[in-house]
Parts: sequence; structure tokens; C-alpha cells
Amino acid sequence: MTAIRIGLCGIGTVGGGVLELLGRNGEVLAGRAGAPLEIVHVGARRDREGVATGSATVSRDVLAVAADPAVDILVEAIGGTEDAHELVSRALKAGKHVVTANKALIAEHGNELLALAEAQGVSLRFEAAVAGGIPIIKALREGLAANRVSWLAGIINGTGNFILTGMAEEEREFADVLAEAQALGYAEADPTFDVEGIDAAHKLVILAAIAFNTSLRFDAVYTEGISALTPEDLAYADELGYVVKHLGVARETGDGLELRVHPTLLPKELLLAKVAGVKNAVLVEGDAVGPTLYYGAGAGGGATASAVMADVIDLARELSRGQRCPLPSLGLPMGELRELPILPMGEVRTAWYLRLEAADRPGVMSQVSRILGDQGISIEALIQKAPQSGQTRVPVVVVTNVASQGNLERAVLAIEALESIAGPVTRIRIESLDG
Amino acid sequence: MTAIRIGLCGIGTVGGGVLELLGRNGEVLAGRAGAPLEIVHVGARRDREGVATGSATVSRDVLAVAADPAVDILVEAIGGTEDAHELVSRALKAGKHVVTANKALIAEHGNELLALAEAQGVSLRFEAAVAGGIPIIKALREGLAANRVSWLAGIINGTGNFILTGMAEEEREFADVLAEAQALGYAEADPTFDVEGIDAAHKLVILAAIAFNTSLRFDAVYTEGISALTPEDLAYADELGYVVKHLGVARETGDGLELRVHPTLLPKELLLAKVAGVKNAVLVEGDAVGPTLYYGAGAGGGATASAVMADVIDLARELSRGQRCPLPSLGLPMGELRELPILPMGEVRTAWYLRLEAADRPGVMSQVSRILGDQGISIEALIQKAPQSGQTRVPVVVVTNVASQGNLERAVLAIEALESIAGPVTRIRIESLDG
Repeated sequence: MTAIRIGLCGIGTVGGGVLELLGRNGEVLAGRAGAPLEIVHVGARRDREGVATGSATVSRDVLAVAADPAVDILVEAIGGTEDAHELVSRALKAGKHVVTANKALIAEHGNELLALAEAQGVSLRFEAAVAGGIPIIKALREGLAANRVSWLAGIINGTGNFILTGMAEEEREFADVLAEAQALGYAEADPTFDVEGIDAAHKLVILAAIAFNTSLRFDAVYTEGISALTPEDLAYADELGYVVKHLGVARETGDGLELRVHPTLLPKELLLAKVAGVKNAVLVEGDAVGPTLYYGAGAGGGATASAVMADVIDLARELSRGQRCPLPSLGLPMGELRELPILPMGEVRTAWYLRLEAADRPGVMSQVSRILGDQGISIEALIQKAPQSGQTRVPVVVVTNVASQGNLERAVLAIEALESIAGPVTRIRIESLDG
Repeated sequence: MTAIRIGLCGIGTVGGGVLELLGRNGEVLAGRAGAPLEIVHVGARRDREGVATGSATVSRDVLAVAADPAVDILVEAIGGTEDAHELVSRALKAGKHVVTANKALIAEHGNELLALAEAQGVSLRFEAAVAGGIPIIKALREGLAANRVSWLAGIINGTGNFILTGMAEEEREFADVLAEAQALGYAEADPTFDVEGIDAAHKLVILAAIAFNTSLRFDAVYTEGISALTPEDLAYADELGYVVKHLGVARETGDGLELRVHPTLLPKELLLAKVAGVKNAVLVEGDAVGPTLYYGAGAGGGATASAVMADVIDLARELSRGQRCPLPSLGLPMGELRELPILPMGEVRTAWYLRLEAADRPGVMSQVSRILGDQGISIEALIQKAPQSGQTRVPVVVVTNVASQGNLERAVLAIEALESIAGPVTRIRIESLDG
């Protein structure tokens, strides 16, 4: 049987993982794909110790792989957005199918690249771009295709979840657990992409496009990181029955689409709240199926290669049987995607966790309560600790009912202006994610 | 665009769910499928209140639907194995694609029916047959296709999990929670299929065939129910750090395939152990991706219809674009499946929970320990309670290391023969499911 010929660009963690996986499981995969999967051309700027490229042609210029007529499917694993954009464009224009793990590329340039793929009659697939080895893109696009999705919420950055788990379980400071994550190789030297939510925003945009049949809207994601969270807030959350997670949330409302990444209090009893350490999980609410959850490794060479090769096998299963690959990658042809308005953050409604430092004297809480009430916000739970000896201020923690961010912010401004309140009010959103 | 024409046989919970879902989401689904999905023929022995069949032809004889040249895809939702077998055979022979939610039919007659479908060049799909709306079949066949699966373990019967959750959390007897499940409609009047593990065995066989590329081996599943479990055992398990779940486990060992359904102690901290109530979840260990978990509703009209229609949309996405549907339903063509030997239960190795009633006098535990040791079994944990006043026997609970069932049974026979031990020894398997 004619082999499916793969061009592999990049032999770092992802590309190396692909080579290792094909080396180990090649025969099994050939059976499933309906044809041998052969890496015929490797593009890599330099060799990498321990990575064997076998009998493949090796080019220092990755663009040579895109131009190689012997390549059926190009796997892009060079990362970044500039060179990868050029590489993927050229491969699509040369009539090749492309598989990538590059979330930034898809989130930021996917609309253009997917339209190009469609015009060329080829596929651009990216299962590995979101939640590593968890087949969440396939689940949304195919497994849940009979549903209208009302919302999805995911722990889609393992670094952040590792840090929050460490902070919560060991009452440690953010910077301390971050340093551990860096030592373990879970976090980069510059952790901005992970801890400030940019990586999660890339992934959320991709999930939302498939779930809600919209174009990719990276321009529209609200992003808030976890670096300002304190062990105290996590401990108060615990006392109130919640766990703090860094969530990506997408929800369709009658007024527009919510796209937001931020720290979130989740009820402890939710399965999503129990996802610990570097793992990822995505919870999806469909109108027919109800809530379903997908859990596993969100990063690492093996897990990412698993998803890359799942895409390759999907394509090879069609190609080996003489078929085209007709399934649009976002579930719909690009021209049929909806242009949903994005709900402004001021109108996004959630419950809230507020922590304030209040003077330890009568009447303060009634002032706070009145200010919240003026914005239509009521208090659902409250923790007020007795002052330690010598303290003149006490921490007060408030859980509100569901309120728009706009109303909440107006109330917080007024609370912060109170003479009896010191410093800024800490605020964290709460999601119940009822199924 | 030419509509994809569906024949629907059966308008009970599943068929009614399909009609309702298509009525509600028909337009969205048509977009995703690439063509309108139209129910042109309904086969049902009688009308059902509240179920509208629209403009479809209605036949009292379901076989008329299989014979209707206007039907492209037949949805089998009549249940049972005899009539359904006849119906599906006829539809396949007539060149129609078939989608079914019928786990018994696939587990018991799937080898024959899938071969027939293959010979006819059509597809027989059954996502809804396992774990309701959770797209676990697609995940195994496609999403994890790059992996060698070493084992999978699932809570794949919601009725059983509801009963065990109630027994554990409220310390109630089996019969008491079963009655509640029956009152809520979660359990049948005759609950045998659910509580004795037959339903789970059907599903396990299907999952294992896809995960391990074998034929469907319903003849080979070991099945043990939950009706003999007591609240005491669940409480001891809890004290030892475990939760008792009714698991389907499939594992490939060097000596053969394990296929077994039985009560199992799971470490509390496992996500699978936290799946409560009527929900289903499947944990899969792949060599590249590591452990991934899939969670959601395992039954109900909406969830089952979600999976049925996902299969229909998968087929329609190909048919609407003039393609054949080349993907084999078990992941490989029937002729390429492996015939793995089945590991005899006597050779299956797990850790064990044992509970015995011992005379309250010195030396008994050293006898028990020696008998276990003679079979190469060591004690990892032990609970021995002081006798209540007036008691002459005390319950003793033992957790062993990993031992074959054969060795364990020899030891238990010897322990039960001790004069100082009363009655049979309760034994429950323990799985750590290390990722």
C-alpha cells in the first residue's frame, strides 16, 4: 500500500515526540491509518541530540519541506507565529495537508489559514493546539456535533493549575510555587504567557470557535492572570466551599459571546474543581447531552505527539482509501461561520468573591452592604474574623449573588472610597457551572 | 442541497430523543452535516404520546423501513437483540448505513454485523451504545488512535454508580438504594442487567475491541455484580482511603487480555473515584498520552440522542460531499483485528480487600498472615476493631499486595477452614490505576 508521506518541521519537544511515537508504534498506526506513515522529510535548523531522523531527507530550511512534492502531510512543530505562518501558508498553497500543535498560530492567524486551506481543497488540523493529548477539538466538532453548546469552561494551562494547586494545598505564595514549576520544567523562565493567561486565551478562542460556530476571535478575549492571587484568598475560598482555578470560559448569551480567562472560584464538589497539578480538563455544556468533561495531560512531548498523530491518522484514513478530507476543521466551512457580537466585560454576569480590610468598628458592614444593595447586589455569604490583638482592621470576605461586572465595579469604587476601608478590594469571579 | 434521509425505528426514550433533538436543532445540524437531515420514515409498533413524527411515513412493521429505498441511514432504536438483529441485517443488506444505541446487539452480534456492513460497503455505527452521550468510542478509535492502550477502566453503568454512591454517602443497604433508583426511574423493575454487571459487560466488550484492535468477545467477560456489597464494606474501604465502584476493566498483558466487570476499591484521590451518582466515566491509559478521562451522562433520551446524531452527522458529513464513509467502526477492517487470548481469571493479578469474622483471641491473625504468606501474599494494611461488649468475634479487614486470583482463592479457602474464622471471607479487588 502506498505510504502516506509526512514532512516534519521542528524536532524539539513536539517534533521529537512525533518521531519517537512513530518509531515505537509505527506498525500499529499504519494498520489504523490504512497505510504506512512515513516521515520522508525533516526540516530543522540544527540536529538535536537523541533525535533520530532515520532515512528522511533533512533540510536546514523548513520551507524546503513545504516545497517538497514528495510530502502529502506537513507537520508544523517549529512554534512561534512568524516563521510558522510562512511555512504553513506555503505548504497549503503547495496543496499539502497541514497538522500543527501551534495554538498561537491558529488563534491569531487561523481565520486566514483555514480559508486558504479551504480554497486549496486541503485540511489544516490542530487537535494538539488545545489541552495537549485530550481529544477535545474532535469531541466538540464531532462527538458533540448534535448539540448547541451553551458554555464551556476549561483548565487549559497546566502551569497555572500546578501553581494554584501548590498554593492551595500547601498554603504557599505564588512566586514560591512558580519557582518550583520552573525548576521542574513546567514553567518557562519568562512565565508571562502561562500565568497571565495568554496561552489559555489562545486555546479558549479555538475551543469557542468550534463550539459556537464562529470565527476565531483572539482580539476579543478578556485575559486576567493569577499572579496577584494570595494563599489567604485561596484559604478563604476553601473555607467558603470553593477552589480557585484559572479558567477559560466561553458562553453564548442572548446578548453576545463571552470569551474570558481569569481566576475563578468553583464549588469544591464539581469534578472540574478536583483537577489538580499540571493536568488539563474541559467541561462542556451541550443542550442534548448535558455536561461532559474531558481530562488528561495538557502538555509534554508524548501527549502532544499523540494529538498530532491523531490528526495525521484521521487524514491518512481518508487519503489511504482514495477519499478527500471533507470535514471543515472548525466544523463548518469558513463562509458559514457566524459573526456573533462579543459581550462587553461590563455586562458579564457572575457571582463575586470580595475581600476587604475594614476598620474594626460597628457600622462598617452595614455601609458596605448598602453600597452593594444600591447596585442590586446582595450578600450570599460572609466571613468576618475577630481582630488579632493590636490589629485595628479586620479582613472581611463577601460572596455576592450574580451581578454584572459593571455594577460590581461601581460598588467596589464606592466601597474603596469609604474612610473605614483600607486599600483596594480584592475581587474574584465565582462560577457555579451548573449542568 | 439533497437531504440525508433517515429512517428511524423505535420511538421510545432513544427514538423519541432523536425526534426531539432534530426538531429543536435541525437547522444547526444541517449546517454541520453539510445537508438537511430529514426523518423520512418512522417504524414503530404503536404511536407514543407526545412523540410527533412530522411528515415522515409511519410503518407498524419496522422492517418496512429497512426495505425503503428512500432511506440512506437507518437508526435502530427498538432495543433487544432478536428483532433488532433482523432489522439491522436487512438494512445493511439493502445498502443502508445503520446507527444504533444497542449495546447488547453490538456486543453479542457485532462481529457478524460489522463484517456484513463491510461487505456491503456501508457503515454500522454505535457511539450511543457505550456511556450514553460521552463520545468515548470516537475518542478511542480516533482521538487516541496514535496510542497503544495498555488498559481502560470505566464506570459504565449509571444505575450501579447511583446505588454505590447512595450506599457510601448515606450508609444505606443495597436494597434500600435500589428501591430509590427504581422509584426515580434509574433502575428497571428487574434490575439484573444493571446490578449484576451484564449491561456493563456489553459496553466493556465494545470499548475493549476498539482499544485493543480485537474482535468483540462478549463470551469472554468475567462479570460480578454489586448486590452482595454491604454498607460496612464501603465504610471500611473509606477508612482505608478507598471508594468502591462497579468497574469495567480491560487490560492487555503479555499473557492475554483481561475483560472483567466487578466491584473495585479505587484510591479516593483518583478522579474516576470521584464520579458520583448516575454519571459515567471512562479512564484510558495510552502509551503516548498517559491517562485521559471522559465523563458525562451515560443514559437518558437527550444524551443518547446526542450520540446517535453525532454518528449520523459523521456519516452525513461524508455523504453530503459525495464521499464514501471509509472509517472502519472498530478502527480496523474486521479481517485485520487481532485474536488475543483471554487471560483466565485465576491469573488476573490485583490487590485485594478481605473482610473476615475472627474469634477474639490471640494467634488468629498470625494464622491468617501465615496462610496468605504461603501463597506469596503480604498484608499492606489491616483494620482490627475491638470487640463490642458481649461479642466473641471481631471483624478484621485486610488489604493485600498484588496477587493472582488463583493464589488469593487458595488462601481464602484455607482461611475459611480455620476453626477461629466464622463464615465466608468477603473479597473485593483493588485497582490503583496508576497513570
